[in-house]
Amino acid sequence: MHLKEKLVKEFNEGLPFHRWLGIEVVGVEIGSVETQINWREEFGHYPGYLHAGLVGTLIETACGFSGLTVTDEKHVATSFSVNFLRPAVGDIFLARAQVTKSGRLQIFTRCDLFVVSGGKERLVANGETIFCVLPEA
Amino acid sequence: MHLKEKLVKEFNEGLPFHRWLGIEVVGVEIGSVETQINWREEFGHYPGYLHAGLVGTLIETACGFSGLTVTDEKHVATSFSVNFLRPAVGDIFLARAQVTKSGRLQIFTRCDLFVVSGGKERLVANGETIFCVLPEA
Amino acid sequence: MHLKEKLVKEFNEGLPFHRWLGIEVVGVEIGSVETQINWREEFGHYPGYLHAGLVGTLIETACGFSGLTVTDEKHVATSFSVNFLRPAVGDIFLARAQVTKSGRLQIFTRCDLFVVSGGKERLVANGETIFCVLPEA
Amino acid sequence: MHLKEKLVKEFNEGLPFHRWLGIEVVGVEIGSVETQINWREEFGHYPGYLHAGLVGTLIETACGFSGLTVTDEKHVATSFSVNFLRPAVGDIFLARAQVTKSGRLQIFTRCDLFVVSGGKERLVANGETIFCVLPEA
Repeated sequence: MHLKEKLVKEFNEGLPFHRWLGIEVVGVEIGSVETQINWREEFGHYPGYLHAGLVGTLIETACGFSGLTVTDEKHVATSFSVNFLRPAVGDIFLARAQVTKSGRLQIFTRCDLFVVSGGKERLVANGETIFCVLPEA
Repeated sequence: MHLKEKLVKEFNEGLPFHRWLGIEVVGVEIGSVETQINWREEFGHYPGYLHAGLVGTLIETACGFSGLTVTDEKHVATSFSVNFLRPAVGDIFLARAQVTKSGRLQIFTRCDLFVVSGGKERLVANGETIFCVLPEA
Repeated sequence: MHLKEKLVKEFNEGLPFHRWLGIEVVGVEIGSVETQINWREEFGHYPGYLHAGLVGTLIETACGFSGLTVTDEKHVATSFSVNFLRPAVGDIFLARAQVTKSGRLQIFTRCDLFVVSGGKERLVANGETIFCVLPEA
Repeated sequence: MHLKEKLVKEFNEGLPFHRWLGIEVVGVEIGSVETQINWREEFGHYPGYLHAGLVGTLIETACGFSGLTVTDEKHVATSFSVNFLRPAVGDIFLARAQVTKSGRLQIFTRCDLFVVSGGKERLVANGETIFCVLPEA
């Protein structure tokens, strides 16, 4: 396990909200991260649909993890956005985030969210997160 | 309690994720809704900061409730976005959402998220949600 | 005419694209700016509708001007977004922008775009622009 | 030249603002479109930088063209957003748009904007446009 993978996994496991959600970090490369969760009834919005706020959480979180892989500088989220493309209904939700541009002042990331079912992936949402790099104190 | 207030409160109380968060509906007018939660440690991202995904959840949820007050048509979220303006640190988080435009096909809403402390409000985030009105079956 | 008003007006008049559009700066306060243009046939998208790119231009530009009023630091646009609320059809388009939050690293702004007709204003679009403050060389 | 290519090119050539910009449609496939413009001094924002509003225009326009290739239904823009990744400085600007999801009620599209120089492409901005499909009269 390389250094950045260790960092992302430890950060993920340290957050109680991520543990409640059961977020698992399933892939870490420099510039891209995959996470997934298993559906539970208590995540529902309309019956069987993953709550829009949790769709956003999975996207923003995976984006943030991808940012961790490209810089050691401290950075915070400026903004994030989510598009709901198809009903977020399924047993496994897989978030695949990547860094679009990592700069000195800002990091731009994007993420696709898939439902995995019977070994097939279906894109149900996508989104973006922009991070602002904090100057050293 | 008018009809729409009843509707929003029942919808809120029916969702397990909202009960976990402790979302309380504190104001319902036609076109605007206020909700709030009390901080708990398990909501944290960085120590003491409300998780970005929960900031998004509070904003998207209050936007959705405001949409419920202006139409009886079924509608689903198209997209939402969130801006992080100041550190989301505090004991009480108050979301104040309003409908910007309610049309035949789409509903545009926006929301400000405040930290309330010592009776004073501080704007920490804002965001938008767009909904698509579903045609009758 | 105060210093910031002079600055915004000179910046506006110095840009050939703004002169082609006929952007007029009609109000400058610290934290808010109003601009307007008069409709011309060549601005059309669908017949009689202001081109979506020009709706965006008016919003981004007014946001940028509002940013100029709150800081002397050099800043550049990170992102902007636009919502199309009603048909952008009319003789006069009025953009009213304001700073939501001006910080050390970032400036958040928003803008409403109105059609003015017979002395009445109708909101046709709104949007946001985030700016990143550049560190001194 | 297939039917959709003809449609997009005719739509493009019919718009005075596109002719002023010199937008050329250089590729049309079902679900994706490429357009480009040549830099002119009058497009400037800061010296040598393509105006943010024109960056938005190129992105929104190419997104709209990609939407035309996947449906015959009338549709209008709901919202669009733009991220500024690198300085938009160059002689040729190439917009590459694609449809992310085309549904019965909505069409989601995205676009990358490149500067082309010496045969090499550099990503300078990206963005999204959502369209709402209009019901038949």
